[in-house]
Amino acid sequence: MPTLEELETPTPIVDLDRLERNLDRMAQYAVEYGLSLRPHIKTHKSPMLATEQLRRGAIGLTCATAAEVEVMSAVGKDILLAYPAIGRARLERLMGVSSETRLTVALDSAEAIEQLAAAARAHDRSVSVLLEIDLGMHRVGVASVDRVIELINLVRARPPLMYAGIAFYPGHIRQSVSVQDESLAELSAALGSVLSELEQANLRPGIVSGGSTPTAFRTHEIEGVTEFRPGTYIFNDRTTCEIGACEKDDVALTVLATVVSTAVPGQAVIDAGSKALGREPLRAAGGGGFGVLAEHSEVTVKAMSEEHGLLDLQGSDWLPAIGDRVHVIPNHVCIVVHLNDVVHGIRNGVIETSWPVAARGR
Amino acid sequence: MPTLEELETPTPIVDLDRLERNLDRMAQYAVEYGLSLRPHIKTHKSPMLATEQLRRGAIGLTCATAAEVEVMSAVGKDILLAYPAIGRARLERLMGVSSETRLTVALDSAEAIEQLAAAARAHDRSVSVLLEIDLGMHRVGVASVDRVIELINLVRARPPLMYAGIAFYPGHIRQSVSVQDESLAELSAALGSVLSELEQANLRPGIVSGGSTPTAFRTHEIEGVTEFRPGTYIFNDRTTCEIGACEKDDVALTVLATVVSTAVPGQAVIDAGSKALGREPLRAAGGGGFGVLAEHSEVTVKAMSEEHGLLDLQGSDWLPAIGDRVHVIPNHVCIVVHLNDVVHGIRNGVIETSWPVAARGR
Repeated sequence: MPTLEELETPTPIVDLDRLERNLDRMAQYAVEYGLSLRPHIKTHKSPMLATEQLRRGAIGLTCATAAEVEVMSAVGKDILLAYPAIGRARLERLMGVSSETRLTVALDSAEAIEQLAAAARAHDRSVSVLLEIDLGMHRVGVASVDRVIELINLVRARPPLMYAGIAFYPGHIRQSVSVQDESLAELSAALGSVLSELEQANLRPGIVSGGSTPTAFRTHEIEGVTEFRPGTYIFNDRTTCEIGACEKDDVALTVLATVVSTAVPGQAVIDAGSKALGREPLRAAGGGGFGVLAEHSEVTVKAMSEEHGLLDLQGSDWLPAIGDRVHVIPNHVCIVVHLNDVVHGIRNGVIETSWPVAARGR
Repeated sequence: MPTLEELETPTPIVDLDRLERNLDRMAQYAVEYGLSLRPHIKTHKSPMLATEQLRRGAIGLTCATAAEVEVMSAVGKDILLAYPAIGRARLERLMGVSSETRLTVALDSAEAIEQLAAAARAHDRSVSVLLEIDLGMHRVGVASVDRVIELINLVRARPPLMYAGIAFYPGHIRQSVSVQDESLAELSAALGSVLSELEQANLRPGIVSGGSTPTAFRTHEIEGVTEFRPGTYIFNDRTTCEIGACEKDDVALTVLATVVSTAVPGQAVIDAGSKALGREPLRAAGGGGFGVLAEHSEVTVKAMSEEHGLLDLQGSDWLPAIGDRVHVIPNHVCIVVHLNDVVHGIRNGVIETSWPVAARGR
């Protein structure tokens, strides 16, 4: 194991104490409010970290791709694919997952139901289905309850599919935690109306699956939700921080980078560019740029090329020297992990462990 | 080998006829104007494709990271690291590259020279140096010729380093080819002035290395340039197309994607989001979005989540069905390759070959 000083940059590193605190806090919140926690593994893509989530009481895992399900089935025996399984290759991969793993798929169309039903029949495998509803995100999901009921009835007519409940994603609620009240009340009302119509149709969902990191600790305020699927909370990032969904010292993952040039006056260049940080905007008030330095909170990455990050030194009296190492808090951590093959875990300034991003690129 | 229809999406696919045409055209241009072509491998990260470039007369390769140099040294015996080798881990990796490969490093600081000289001495390895100058990009590079001369003299005083020439990157010239004249004239004048001062100081550079894809076919207009380092030209992308540096049918790489949801009225969702396409802006006039469909040039990817691309169907009479497959022309192809582990080569509708992105994540 190299020392932290020997580590080649740019590379993502994780503060293990913070990571464990983040895991514990969400697990405790779930217990406190009697909610099922089904963390989304897209953020870490690591069976080792999924195991840490399950060990702390997560009831199962959420994945975005069939290949993620495949990788996670080594440790997760109850997996939700929160994505319609359209197309033969994706379905074949999904059906190839060990039969010891209980599969659930969230979907929003008759085509997805028919394709999944055909694959499930061919493999003689029962698959649970959540109907994806649109509560304001307008990405996927059915908005009309009549249509939801039609699709639920189609699922019920297609064994070995089983109607298990409904799912929604409140990803449009991204404003600061302090002003979420109204959005959450609207969401809660919209969900309440769907639930009462389903109840009247005798189709009360066993599972009502929602939740993402920006609203995770307020999930109990959305009446009717039984499980939630936060992902980012395991590491947190600049966006999570700026909206107030975590504190700065809850940010567990940073990108270690090196100052490689100060030749152009008024700026410094680090070796973390778009291939290390992604080009994700800050999804919050609080400034521009593609990341902020943990050690100099006034310094952002103002521009990037693939391997160059340009630090904005205006407003800072820090004078970077070539060779200086800095920790960049990325705007969006999920992309950063997806860009890397290995993540290093640090405790007390020492690399304690390193793990592969096993489901990367999958 | 799966058939094209069996391929799991999203995945990058390459039209091999177009790829070969792109390779041939640039090689012929270099011959026609007596320029040395040293292609940047950051775009493809594949030793197999680097070999195709060398076979067509490229005099060597350009890399952005020491790990890329390591991977490419299997096929390239003359490699330029167009990036300052700052930090022990990077230098150790670079010095570990087979001694059969001639190494050149472009850099812009005394610190970079001293670090490289110490490593080269420790490994008893001669390394050529290009002084990076700033001709308007304002990313890295020295703007003052006096400072360039100081640094050249420092290199000359630090054997086994050898002063080989100067390098610049005209990446700021990104406007449409039809309006590049003035920028190229300015660049040419600025370079001319540097060259005449170096001449007066008796430090005439053997190599004057410039060039990137947007201006590649006009490199001969920049007086004094001896070699150029285009990368993107091997695949091209939406940006290259929109600025007029290639035709639409020169775009060799597209991302094959599947329509997975049409539940939200007025849009369709494909399975290529930011984890497949990156979140690169179009660096040209000609529209927004994160990519455009090859088969429906009026349809762009207007928004993305990690695994969702939202197609803007306004202005199109195409009615996508769930399961439809489309080809997305990405805004910036280098990021797309970097996000993937494997690329498939297609000819006449058949997968002829697949290759690993060997230097991905490195």
